[in-house]
Amino acid sequence: MSTDQLSQGARGRRGRRRDGGAPAPAIVQRPFTQLKRPYPAVELISDDQVEHIHQASLKLLSETGLDVLHDDARGLMKKAGADVRDGDVRVRFDPDLINEAVATAPAEFTLHARNPQHNVVMGGNNIVFNMMASAPNCSDTDRGRRSGNQEDYRNFLRLAQMHNVLNVTGGYPVEPVDIHASVRHLDCIQDYITLTDKAYCIYSLGEERVSDAIEMTRIAHGLSHDQMRDQACMFSIINTNSPLQLDIPMMQGVMALSEMGQPVVITPFTLAGAMAPVTIAGAVTLQNAEALAGVAFTQMVRPGAPVMYGGFTSNVDMKTGSPAFGTPEYMKAQHIGGQLARRYGIPYRSSNVCAANTVDSQAAYEAVFSLWGAINGGANMLMHGAGWLEGGLCCSYEKVILDIDLLQMIAEFLQPVPTSVDDLALEAINEVGPAGHFFGTEHTQARYRDAFYSPILSDWRNFETWQEAGSPIAIERANAEWKKRLASYEAPALDPAIRGELDAFVTKRKAEGGAATDF
Amino acid sequence: MSTDQLSQGARGRRGRRRDGGAPAPAIVQRPFTQLKRPYPAVELISDDQVEHIHQASLKLLSETGLDVLHDDARGLMKKAGADVRDGDVRVRFDPDLINEAVATAPAEFTLHARNPQHNVVMGGNNIVFNMMASAPNCSDTDRGRRSGNQEDYRNFLRLAQMHNVLNVTGGYPVEPVDIHASVRHLDCIQDYITLTDKAYCIYSLGEERVSDAIEMTRIAHGLSHDQMRDQACMFSIINTNSPLQLDIPMMQGVMALSEMGQPVVITPFTLAGAMAPVTIAGAVTLQNAEALAGVAFTQMVRPGAPVMYGGFTSNVDMKTGSPAFGTPEYMKAQHIGGQLARRYGIPYRSSNVCAANTVDSQAAYEAVFSLWGAINGGANMLMHGAGWLEGGLCCSYEKVILDIDLLQMIAEFLQPVPTSVDDLALEAINEVGPAGHFFGTEHTQARYRDAFYSPILSDWRNFETWQEAGSPIAIERANAEWKKRLASYEAPALDPAIRGELDAFVTKRKAEGGAATDF
Repeated sequence: MSTDQLSQGARGRRGRRRDGGAPAPAIVQRPFTQLKRPYPAVELISDDQVEHIHQASLKLLSETGLDVLHDDARGLMKKAGADVRDGDVRVRFDPDLINEAVATAPAEFTLHARNPQHNVVMGGNNIVFNMMASAPNCSDTDRGRRSGNQEDYRNFLRLAQMHNVLNVTGGYPVEPVDIHASVRHLDCIQDYITLTDKAYCIYSLGEERVSDAIEMTRIAHGLSHDQMRDQACMFSIINTNSPLQLDIPMMQGVMALSEMGQPVVITPFTLAGAMAPVTIAGAVTLQNAEALAGVAFTQMVRPGAPVMYGGFTSNVDMKTGSPAFGTPEYMKAQHIGGQLARRYGIPYRSSNVCAANTVDSQAAYEAVFSLWGAINGGANMLMHGAGWLEGGLCCSYEKVILDIDLLQMIAEFLQPVPTSVDDLALEAINEVGPAGHFFGTEHTQARYRDAFYSPILSDWRNFETWQEAGSPIAIERANAEWKKRLASYEAPALDPAIRGELDAFVTKRKAEGGAATDF
Repeated sequence: MSTDQLSQGARGRRGRRRDGGAPAPAIVQRPFTQLKRPYPAVELISDDQVEHIHQASLKLLSETGLDVLHDDARGLMKKAGADVRDGDVRVRFDPDLINEAVATAPAEFTLHARNPQHNVVMGGNNIVFNMMASAPNCSDTDRGRRSGNQEDYRNFLRLAQMHNVLNVTGGYPVEPVDIHASVRHLDCIQDYITLTDKAYCIYSLGEERVSDAIEMTRIAHGLSHDQMRDQACMFSIINTNSPLQLDIPMMQGVMALSEMGQPVVITPFTLAGAMAPVTIAGAVTLQNAEALAGVAFTQMVRPGAPVMYGGFTSNVDMKTGSPAFGTPEYMKAQHIGGQLARRYGIPYRSSNVCAANTVDSQAAYEAVFSLWGAINGGANMLMHGAGWLEGGLCCSYEKVILDIDLLQMIAEFLQPVPTSVDDLALEAINEVGPAGHFFGTEHTQARYRDAFYSPILSDWRNFETWQEAGSPIAIERANAEWKKRLASYEAPALDPAIRGELDAFVTKRKAEGGAATDF
């Protein structure tokens, strides 16, 4: 059992005292588990329509092609049979080449954490929730909005570690711009490994950084290089430059990571009306073409390399060009993306996103619509699970708490409903009889503590009592809650030998100047 | 085309000016249509589990039975073959009796509005959204919370009429307690008929009121009594007194309405942990037993009478007994209730409910979770579609706007995704090419006006612009919006002869003293 399970989870979900005097823990939650969707994903469009999109994507890749800016990547593609011409970055792929390459991608793989209790499986009906990633800013209602920095970065990692519903740390919840870019990845990955023991996301920003990330992760897991080639221990998001362009750092990332057996998540950023057609079918066709090219390339680098199909298609506000999230169009794209990923038998990534600027009802409805689209669309990994505001420009402490509550509610909804004789409760119903009440029955008394999910934020008091308490709204409760929770953080155990090796590596790489910053 | 379509809908969903100088309408919306779920409802539990609940319900009805307080109703049940004993209100039903009676209920029926453009179909994959019903209080952020009254009652009806996404007025959005109870139903139904031309819900509060409602509705539709027996023109909610009791006014309602071919919605109010077992399986078993008894009774009154299966199972806060809504447990019950209704081939009713006291993020997430459970659980009619706060104790003007926005987003999500050659946009993608932008393409220009849903409340401005505007939150935008919208209300057309007949009836019944108030 993992440290956080022992310290937080094992005391019971509801936080009521189980013994005579021990205080209630700061966090009451289910133990860390891998969620599974207990029903088939929703098929929003017909199989024929999926096929239309698939065929259109193949036609696009074979006739229009896309620009691959990295010379070695183009070389690999040419070697695999793609149409690559001297002096031209444009690459075209025969449909058979794409289909055959995509077919070697695994349908499922395990993402290993340094604490094996936190390993997760990607694919099938498995669902994995991640912390938010990559915000330039962060905020809380006490101090307002500010640029990302190491203190907040670390706090968000701590919150990710403490909450069992967050299976994976994700990427940098906020970008710590107070650390020089040449060594930022070293500090950030060191924090991943020391402040959390969950799996994480590294950034594909050039060969050196990826190489450092691989080495640090290898040290953290106590593996040899050879062993690591067969064990996914981290992942990276590869965004295509939509439309139809694969840039140099991303291709470097794919080559290094796929070669090392580390998963990449090919995620076109296809905003309908901006970088993609204004129709959902057109935007998803472009998404699919770019994703197929990226997925196929991972398999050209190394057949069988773990890879995920990332969907991030949304729409923009046609009046201003602002990206919108958690919209009906976003939900449609989430569902169709899932149908395509399942057609290819590749694990599917979606996100919990919103455009709201504060934690008001807009933030909540955009988030729950995103979650609806992700869960029923068949997402295996949910990026940006907790914290995302402002279309991703800010990680909010209060939103972290709201999202953890939402994810926990969904986790509860996905738990099986038992229908044993005891659960059907005929005896209790007969005992209570007409016009009676169930509270005092033995059936209720034996079960009431754990019968229902107890929300973090929901205020269920009646209006008068709530008004007397000052009419608190959810964002105020969230503010009190993250501070209380963060104060109870305990770092996970880490083998001192690994810690020493990691420190030595970081010291050495910093002395060497870190990584070049001319990317 | 209906009045509201002509005045609001036909000018286009987006409200942009289509001609040189006409001002944008106050409401930009899709025309009135009947929504359909384009994918199968989600089966949360297995068919075997559905069968466990079904069999347990039948066992409960045959062995424990339920109390039927109305003598004539018991008489009808006895005549149909139920186990009814002299001097005892308890009634037990043989499983075959229930199964055979339930089998005669229609799988689909049309609910007629006085404006035939607003007719709706219940059952199958049809979805109907209703206005909120039955709040004792109402509120807005200008004037705060107050008891229900005629002015607010009428305003909510106007908002229901104006918004095409609300297919049915529902019941009294707020109870106008400033009208004496003896004549309240007369005034309220008169307002239904004059302020709206959509179908509505009447209350089963004794024979006189039901008889008045039938007569007024018959007049409004211009039907003979015989014609009305074959045309559903209104409906009523029949709540059982859980556990296991059917009271007198409700049974009177069923007898009068089923006999007249008017639909009833049998809705047990089974709160797990209070009036129902603490397990979801047990609470739904009780719900199902009570619903089956009610549905079977409608068919004993008149085989083929239209009836709906109502699900309202939720949980309570086990610390305080307060009802909770929009919870994971509520979502589970919504899905399982739908599976049971489909097993019986009866249209299914669910609700858009929350426990929140104000329109904050809690109100939004509880509402969207309720909507998720309703839509994917296969609800055919959504009660309390717009306005519900405080577990139903308050209808909020701002919540009306939030909910209309949520319902419109769902309506948009449920629209088919076309995948024609034009929609797939290969030509546009090829034209734009790598690293280009789609905004200027002909493909975008031809479609951008109607390409995406334009939310009422969502603020998509970037943080800086939003902050300069005073950091408005969604509830403030909702407040401005309902006032602007309400100001543009126009009453629907009503034949002066019908209007005269209706007025005469109300005048006569008021002169007679209305209905007895000793219920």
